[in-house]
Amino acid sequence: MSASTRKAASQGRIGDYNQTVILDAVRRSADGVSRVELAAATGLSAQAVTNIVRQLIAAGLITEGRRAPIARGKPRTLLNLNPDGQYAIGVHLDPAVITYVLLDLVGTTLAHARFVTPAHPDPAEVTADSAAQIEELIKVASISRDRIVGVGIAAPGPIDVDRGVIVDPPNLEGWQNVPLRDALRDAVGLPVLLDKDVTAAAAAEKWYGESGDFLFFYLGTGVGVGLVINNEVFRGTSHNSGQIGNIIVDNGIPCPCGYQGCLGEGSQPRMLVHLGIVNGALDHDVDLDDRPQVEAGLVELAERALSGNYPASQVLDTMVRGVLKASEDIALLLDLDHIVFGGPHWTTLAPFFSSGRIAELRRRHSLQSARELTTSGTRIGEDVGAVGAASLVLDHTFSTNPAVLLAG
Amino acid sequence: MSASTRKAASQGRIGDYNQTVILDAVRRSADGVSRVELAAATGLSAQAVTNIVRQLIAAGLITEGRRAPIARGKPRTLLNLNPDGQYAIGVHLDPAVITYVLLDLVGTTLAHARFVTPAHPDPAEVTADSAAQIEELIKVASISRDRIVGVGIAAPGPIDVDRGVIVDPPNLEGWQNVPLRDALRDAVGLPVLLDKDVTAAAAAEKWYGESGDFLFFYLGTGVGVGLVINNEVFRGTSHNSGQIGNIIVDNGIPCPCGYQGCLGEGSQPRMLVHLGIVNGALDHDVDLDDRPQVEAGLVELAERALSGNYPASQVLDTMVRGVLKASEDIALLLDLDHIVFGGPHWTTLAPFFSSGRIAELRRRHSLQSARELTTSGTRIGEDVGAVGAASLVLDHTFSTNPAVLLAG
Repeated sequence: MSASTRKAASQGRIGDYNQTVILDAVRRSADGVSRVELAAATGLSAQAVTNIVRQLIAAGLITEGRRAPIARGKPRTLLNLNPDGQYAIGVHLDPAVITYVLLDLVGTTLAHARFVTPAHPDPAEVTADSAAQIEELIKVASISRDRIVGVGIAAPGPIDVDRGVIVDPPNLEGWQNVPLRDALRDAVGLPVLLDKDVTAAAAAEKWYGESGDFLFFYLGTGVGVGLVINNEVFRGTSHNSGQIGNIIVDNGIPCPCGYQGCLGEGSQPRMLVHLGIVNGALDHDVDLDDRPQVEAGLVELAERALSGNYPASQVLDTMVRGVLKASEDIALLLDLDHIVFGGPHWTTLAPFFSSGRIAELRRRHSLQSARELTTSGTRIGEDVGAVGAASLVLDHTFSTNPAVLLAG
Repeated sequence: MSASTRKAASQGRIGDYNQTVILDAVRRSADGVSRVELAAATGLSAQAVTNIVRQLIAAGLITEGRRAPIARGKPRTLLNLNPDGQYAIGVHLDPAVITYVLLDLVGTTLAHARFVTPAHPDPAEVTADSAAQIEELIKVASISRDRIVGVGIAAPGPIDVDRGVIVDPPNLEGWQNVPLRDALRDAVGLPVLLDKDVTAAAAAEKWYGESGDFLFFYLGTGVGVGLVINNEVFRGTSHNSGQIGNIIVDNGIPCPCGYQGCLGEGSQPRMLVHLGIVNGALDHDVDLDDRPQVEAGLVELAERALSGNYPASQVLDTMVRGVLKASEDIALLLDLDHIVFGGPHWTTLAPFFSSGRIAELRRRHSLQSARELTTSGTRIGEDVGAVGAASLVLDHTFSTNPAVLLAG
């Protein structure tokens, strides 16, 4: 690269940087923000703000909205994001369900679809199906394809983020070293990124306004945690942080790892349904090797527990107690004082995170820390993984240094 | 502050900042560094480097050393830190031993002292004793008092770093809400900082050259971990990260917390000695409420195990297995792949971290991660807490943004 090209590229980047700063400031303003406020908030000159705003309006990313009266002088025009300025698609590959969302620039879900993951999901088949579903989503939302920034995939770890490869997930047979990111990119012709499900979920909670540092406890076919530390989504050196399946939580269940009482083994739907059958809470006709049957069995177990079946309650309470014990351990290790629970199974399991169990967690924590522990449920719902994957794509619009790059 | 004062102060800070950058670059050069190399490494102009170096030589912080021949032109003078340019004192308050070190600017320990912590340590008494010991250290090292940057205290958590207060450590009776930092400052008339023992220890390992991210596993009266993440010492929101006493590791020992098999309960010297007595490895004449007797009992237990006493080996092996299980859990949670073991009891316990147990840890880890886990022992030894506390003081010389402020 010649010196002059380099200089031009560098100036280009500075321009992009300031655009990003302005876009992010507009995004963070709940009711719109004026050019004068943007200059004050960003430290850019009034002239620079005016120029950048003009470019962003021309690009369709922001719009002029209502005029806000001020004490003296002429009212100021408030700027807002243009929701239809850009879109992002999120795909969450869970061993039990595959979820798709299409978000606009302000994070509203314009289209959504969810399917049971095939019993023996073949990578090539899943890739082809996903590409077809993404086309369907674009059609349903009737949006302009050239405004789609890209597709984010949230998948169970371990993953290789740099290569976009699913390495060896414990609950997806036959998915060793699958280059899903590039395969999907080739199939849909859009830029694609891949990140870990629990991390994407934590990113989603942060994107939708969860403030401060927190631990996101993901409840799906597997359990895991996403971490927001120092106001940033934490990923670990290889983007594989959040693995907690072998933390011992004293649930009494032998684990193939050799220890007894591991969180993952005792929390998987298959084990919960099995225990429900063994202690008489469920009938004997569930095929434990059939994921959809297991998922339905878990829902039934929860329903029975809610309607007063004691053995069913016991199974779920033991699982919840384990989740809360692991939450306590991680909160104390990392000096975190807020926990968000969510993931595909949160809706089913939430009633069993009783106020009594939460109080017990807080009491135990208070004996070991000078700080108060607080908890909440996801603000996004069951789609949190897919929404998170899409929000990682939108991060490319609002951050000069997105955590996961799109392969385009 | 007037605009001109503000400007002057700001310029002063920029000067300080550049001085810090140069000092740190000199520190990181193993064999000395030339002015030309400093300019290249820091991006400062040759003139700026020359000026700053002149100031730093005048201040006694760096010295001109040998002349390095270069291919053409006159040989370049290499710059080194002046070891006697500044000093820092570290105090490690452990429930069993109190350790003092005096470091010079390159981190060499010039003086060192260690005492058994009194059976019922009174905060006022410990403060007075510490002040006296610090004076003794200064006398023994025969250094100039006005070159001491300050005193760092490493103490068990929970602590209140901002207020310099020891809040409520589990193994120090009567130490609730003790403002140790300011009390010691008033007693010795030097600036003082307070940080958590495990964090100080991790900082020491990093300071002495441990590179990359790692987990420092601290073995003392209590166990805990210090974390270096993204190349920085991790502290958590309230500087109290690293608490792991209630992680369950399946050692079979009931814990007062209500669970069975907690790491902290099964790892404390009191419990190890108790188990040694119960299974016949040790004689019955140890008073478990007497810390020095317990410490001696632990050393004896280790000696017996080393000389082939099976019950003694069993006690220590169960403890080591627990420590390694917790290490595995934390490494997977945080996607870390290096563990450093150390702390006051490391010398005693190291032989029981056998190659077989380490291999088992690595094998278990490899089943859950695509990465290789490595382990090592501390490079600093038993003084790691005190050395860490002193290194946090020296951080004020080499960083514009030290993690813990000195109260002066």
